[in-house]
Amino acid sequence: MNQFINAKETLVTDAIDGLLETCGGALTRLDGYPHIKVVCRTDWDKSKVALISGGGSGHEPAHAGFVGAGMLTAAVCGEIFASPSVDAVLAGILAVTGPSGCLLIVKNYTGDRLNFGLAAERARAFGLKVAMVVVDDDIALPDLPQPRGVAGTLFVHKIAGALAEADADLATITEAAQSAISNMASIGKSLDTCTVPGSAKEDRIAPGMAELGLGIHGEAGVQQVAFKDAQNAMDLVLEKLAPRIGTGPYVAILNNLGSTTPLEMSVLAHELATSERAGNITHIIGPAPLMTSLDMHGFSVSVLPVDAVIMSHLHAPVDLPTWPGVKDIGPVLVSPLPDGLSPIQPIPSSNTKTRNVLEQCCDLLMAAEADLNELDAKSGDGDTGNTLATAARALKGALDRLPLADPTQLFRAVGNELSQTMGGSSGVILAIFFGATGDACASGKPIHKALLAGLERISQVGGAQIGDRTMIDALGPALSALPQGLDAAASAARDGAQKTAAMGRANAGRASYVPEENLIGHVDPGAEAVARLFEGLAKAL
Amino acid sequence: MNQFINAKETLVTDAIDGLLETCGGALTRLDGYPHIKVVCRTDWDKSKVALISGGGSGHEPAHAGFVGAGMLTAAVCGEIFASPSVDAVLAGILAVTGPSGCLLIVKNYTGDRLNFGLAAERARAFGLKVAMVVVDDDIALPDLPQPRGVAGTLFVHKIAGALAEADADLATITEAAQSAISNMASIGKSLDTCTVPGSAKEDRIAPGMAELGLGIHGEAGVQQVAFKDAQNAMDLVLEKLAPRIGTGPYVAILNNLGSTTPLEMSVLAHELATSERAGNITHIIGPAPLMTSLDMHGFSVSVLPVDAVIMSHLHAPVDLPTWPGVKDIGPVLVSPLPDGLSPIQPIPSSNTKTRNVLEQCCDLLMAAEADLNELDAKSGDGDTGNTLATAARALKGALDRLPLADPTQLFRAVGNELSQTMGGSSGVILAIFFGATGDACASGKPIHKALLAGLERISQVGGAQIGDRTMIDALGPALSALPQGLDAAASAARDGAQKTAAMGRANAGRASYVPEENLIGHVDPGAEAVARLFEGLAKAL
Repeated sequence: MNQFINAKETLVTDAIDGLLETCGGALTRLDGYPHIKVVCRTDWDKSKVALISGGGSGHEPAHAGFVGAGMLTAAVCGEIFASPSVDAVLAGILAVTGPSGCLLIVKNYTGDRLNFGLAAERARAFGLKVAMVVVDDDIALPDLPQPRGVAGTLFVHKIAGALAEADADLATITEAAQSAISNMASIGKSLDTCTVPGSAKEDRIAPGMAELGLGIHGEAGVQQVAFKDAQNAMDLVLEKLAPRIGTGPYVAILNNLGSTTPLEMSVLAHELATSERAGNITHIIGPAPLMTSLDMHGFSVSVLPVDAVIMSHLHAPVDLPTWPGVKDIGPVLVSPLPDGLSPIQPIPSSNTKTRNVLEQCCDLLMAAEADLNELDAKSGDGDTGNTLATAARALKGALDRLPLADPTQLFRAVGNELSQTMGGSSGVILAIFFGATGDACASGKPIHKALLAGLERISQVGGAQIGDRTMIDALGPALSALPQGLDAAASAARDGAQKTAAMGRANAGRASYVPEENLIGHVDPGAEAVARLFEGLAKAL
Repeated sequence: MNQFINAKETLVTDAIDGLLETCGGALTRLDGYPHIKVVCRTDWDKSKVALISGGGSGHEPAHAGFVGAGMLTAAVCGEIFASPSVDAVLAGILAVTGPSGCLLIVKNYTGDRLNFGLAAERARAFGLKVAMVVVDDDIALPDLPQPRGVAGTLFVHKIAGALAEADADLATITEAAQSAISNMASIGKSLDTCTVPGSAKEDRIAPGMAELGLGIHGEAGVQQVAFKDAQNAMDLVLEKLAPRIGTGPYVAILNNLGSTTPLEMSVLAHELATSERAGNITHIIGPAPLMTSLDMHGFSVSVLPVDAVIMSHLHAPVDLPTWPGVKDIGPVLVSPLPDGLSPIQPIPSSNTKTRNVLEQCCDLLMAAEADLNELDAKSGDGDTGNTLATAARALKGALDRLPLADPTQLFRAVGNELSQTMGGSSGVILAIFFGATGDACASGKPIHKALLAGLERISQVGGAQIGDRTMIDALGPALSALPQGLDAAASAARDGAQKTAAMGRANAGRASYVPEENLIGHVDPGAEAVARLFEGLAKAL
């Protein structure tokens, strides 16, 4: 599988440099590439306790993405899924540790424990105060003596980060971190494995199956289960966590393991928020990618019991786009629909002349039905005549309820009628045309100018101009000529309609999807309808 | 392909509810499910200009994820890749629009233009001030009369959002939005199509190929190009944008189209930041998922020329985890490696008794080489003897440079020697043991207690306790018995070592990967080495 990388060998250093180049100067790295990959805060003054985490790469934004005031002081990055060396960790410790000492936050993998552990030892030989906590939150195998460290690590970053920022001492921070580690639990679930750059993807999970209790390095999950739906997936995860959830309140991290879409994560958040099993989980961090496993299509849930003190640490502000903050879980707040969704029903009124014009228009369109269908069949699906005639019949039947004596209300009402009876884009476009014409009347424009305002609006909304092979090619010239009388308008409409036959390319409307050879020589049916309308009106009135 | 959803029909409403349940009460929705899906701010007071965006779903976090102070007032969500209805948009407008009016921010797709356009018309009939801008930033087809609206929409959300929050009027906001739209340009690139829930994934892009200039609905790109690497991918994208980038400064949105990993996005950020073609791009938003296309494995770049005023709008704070902020693009800040990465070289000193003990230890381990290898072959790879004997030979050769008269420095120096000559985890563990023993000596502990402190440290770092079938099973009892003399220690070590033969399961160290039947009846080689050491010392001293 292709990936947006340059080479496996430079992947991690390229990515770290990309982070540093786009962080606005907040981060620096030690001059130890490629062996030593340590990212540090640039605003660090060594007066507070330093917090250092790290491990293999492939878990981004962990850990370099969490370096910043209120979270980590430095991140020591290994190659993909490989622990950083003792020297790299030691370099990180020596670079950021001042008289207040430092805490190493390590995930429970042998390589990380040993390399961070020995680096701590070396640093102590320099007289530095170095403490270390090992996160082992994964409950996939409940009786495993060495549970893995996974997304719960973020609880430690945040709680220790808030304490360090508030000038707590090393012992206090270490104790708080250790206490959080003892109380937390995590488990993951995935629909697929991850793609390790340079290696073939392991095809371990059959379609229709999911893995429960898997780690963050592509290692197999504890069990494969049938995948049913999001609700069931979250339920199985919460079932595993249930023995670790006492009386509340609890905070949950809902972590995206990689390529799960925001839409899916929101569905999972919904299932978490509404599950009976999660009743004591009252706060949530995410859904967000926090501790990923490359492109794994999965998620994990981590839980931690909280009190007011821990909540204040979790709520302490950090200026990192990677940290989603902690929110109360609550019900969906539903607001009533506003009044006015149904169009205002106009008060019927009568005007013989207006009624006559409208009836003429409807009759003309009904009479043109077969011809327009035939024309449309050459460049479309052959239903323009139907669509317009159906709308015309409906409009004719509605004349008694229309406000015929009030142009503003009449245009709006005709627009509403057409949008309800015509359907499709043409109904919407005509509704916009008549609606905007009515608006213009309301603002005092004479009818001729109001119609031009309507034209301008559909041109803006629909995106079609003269020359784009739409009804506008006839309607535009006709309205422009209208002050010179109906005969002039009819003649202009016919001219405009005829021109569409020479237009090879439709730039708007559905004819834009029709090949040029099917268009040339045929008048656009919408433009033809407009021409027939004006010609008929000129003859009849 | 499985996805974490419940049903296609409830996907969007489930996801919106998930967003609302985990937003801490900041958002509400209108009571119009399933037809009307409108998300609004709960803290909205209608005194400012309302900003409403929306369109088909599948682009999360756009648009509901950007509803909040300083960005959108409401988002009107359609089904996946389908425009919301006129009624839905109208409901959104009516729900949030006050006397200052509202601006509709619409992406340039026919359905969106028409439905938002007609809703605007209807709302105007109620006397509301409604303006609408259409974002058409996609330059994939440079001569297309109706370019698509893609990730540049975020520029409009943010600029208009900052202005509305600062009480600008509708005309001012509309003009600023329109100006941004006229000046921006975007283009996308992807290695794969997207998975539309309920449909089979289109297998359009062959391995080794990428699509350039593709939209956000899975529609085909303008061209397929060979995929080389991240640098080339970004270069082709910037080549397309180059004609739209004048003299700077410019801001770029680096948008994740879906399932591109954070690692890849950082590599692409690095290529953007260091490309010569991007010289006038001085600020960046992202990399982040802002306008996605479900799970598409791709990215897009959007550019906008900026001045101090626009930058102030982009920098205006918003409290939304989806908004990554805008950062200056800069060089990688590199800090010098700290001093002290090489272990402190101790000043050699002499002590006949200590030298004698060390020589004895080395000789004992060298003599046990073959036996330990044989023992290890039964439960491991048969090299324990080699490893220890090699280290012992090296240590014996280093005696002249060791600080034999200073226990603190001597233990630390022995640890450093072993970590450099032994390799592997055993070298690291022994280095930690002797380092921690030295630390304890430094703090004034007698040697016996210092050794116990070393044991405690490796137990913490390595994770092994007595009973876990490691050398600790011999070392622990031996050190506990040491105050009673070397004979007692030797006897305790032997007892402890013998007990490992009965341990079926190794809970730590590499023997934890060996089946039980291969372990039972054999003493752990590490524990055996410790027993031989103490027995030999008791005999010799």
